[in-house]
Amino acid sequence: MTKGPSVNPGVIDLLGLLAYAELGSFFRLAGDAVLAPTLRGKGRLAALAATEQAHHQVLHDRLEELGVDPEEAMAPFVEPLDAWQARTEPKTWLESLVKTYVADGIAGDFYRRVAELADDETRILVEGVLAETGRAEFVAETVREALAEDPVLAGRLSLWARRLVGEALGQAQAVAVQRPRLAALLGEGSDRPGTEGADATGLGDLAAVSRMFASLTDRHAARLEAMGLTA
Amino acid sequence: MTKGPSVNPGVIDLLGLLAYAELGSFFRLAGDAVLAPTLRGKGRLAALAATEQAHHQVLHDRLEELGVDPEEAMAPFVEPLDAWQARTEPKTWLESLVKTYVADGIAGDFYRRVAELADDETRILVEGVLAETGRAEFVAETVREALAEDPVLAGRLSLWARRLVGEALGQAQAVAVQRPRLAALLGEGSDRPGTEGADATGLGDLAAVSRMFASLTDRHAARLEAMGLTA
Repeated sequence: MTKGPSVNPGVIDLLGLLAYAELGSFFRLAGDAVLAPTLRGKGRLAALAATEQAHHQVLHDRLEELGVDPEEAMAPFVEPLDAWQARTEPKTWLESLVKTYVADGIAGDFYRRVAELADDETRILVEGVLAETGRAEFVAETVREALAEDPVLAGRLSLWARRLVGEALGQAQAVAVQRPRLAALLGEGSDRPGTEGADATGLGDLAAVSRMFASLTDRHAARLEAMGLTA
Repeated sequence: MTKGPSVNPGVIDLLGLLAYAELGSFFRLAGDAVLAPTLRGKGRLAALAATEQAHHQVLHDRLEELGVDPEEAMAPFVEPLDAWQARTEPKTWLESLVKTYVADGIAGDFYRRVAELADDETRILVEGVLAETGRAEFVAETVREALAEDPVLAGRLSLWARRLVGEALGQAQAVAVQRPRLAALLGEGSDRPGTEGADATGLGDLAAVSRMFASLTDRHAARLEAMGLTA
């Protein structure tokens, strides 16, 4: 199988990244179930995990349809995403929920970028995934409720959220160095003009990466607010 | 919420047992993914796990529709099923596959019993779950392929399968003592006439339990053969 000529290789990278991220989230949510305080909580976590698996499957199957080996497309992102998971292991049920919310938010930003850049069929698939927002609201609400009961938690969880993003930016930097094309793609569409292909290994990309980080950080602050946390 | 008058309490027990068994299988399959030798294998395990979650959801929602608290219905089976999982932790990918096949087979026997005893709507749901057989075939095929490559494995995996059933029977005995009604229900429909309600704590039930065990063991032998193993 070979790639069709019309497929933007950066989009393949993005689909591979998201496919592995969804698989990783699946395993993490399933594993975190031990932290769930009740049988009901465990059931709910299992349902969330199954949704991630369904998203993974959509992306996996779409990559195949595009003539790309899904495992090959995911491979470059296994190490950085596993490293992020390992470096940010939640110690409590609430930390796990905040991690889910933050990770979903960042993934959502990436999905929206795919929707902007990809072919129509891929865009429709991605918009279907993005439409499943009910779960993020449940997570934010649960965190807000916990903060209302115990306001002292806000400081600790805000710090936790900051660490989550800090570690994500660290891994993103490593990916950006290895996949300059992807970094350029993600850096486009912010306030400055795109630099895709202009300078595939030079300063243009570093600037694009900085813009990508700035844009991620902005949206992250809004997401923290939705959970009742501060950036 | 209270139970409708038409619901056989033994059926509620069975639905609760199966609901928790599916949730347990979900967590086990997701956890076993570390044993999968490839990214492809991990993805496949995640898909299997998601199917278990979907089955759990079907049973959970049906219990609610029947006016029963799903968590309450599952509660009596948490300890014996968790104990079974803990006492039979697979050490290899193949052991994990054999466990999946054996556990699915036993669950299938229980689902068929529910289909015989329950109301029409529950029966249709259960038959829908049972119709998803593709996955069991994939598992049996993978085990047979591995045995063809390395026939020495057959002895070890046959022993493993025997231990899986032995441990299951041990836990079933404990459940049968605590839920004589359920044991009676499961013992019916074999070669001897049913004893449901006849002697809820006495010898009648012990006989029913023995019949249930005999019937489980018979079908188990056929399932081992399908994987190329011996009883």
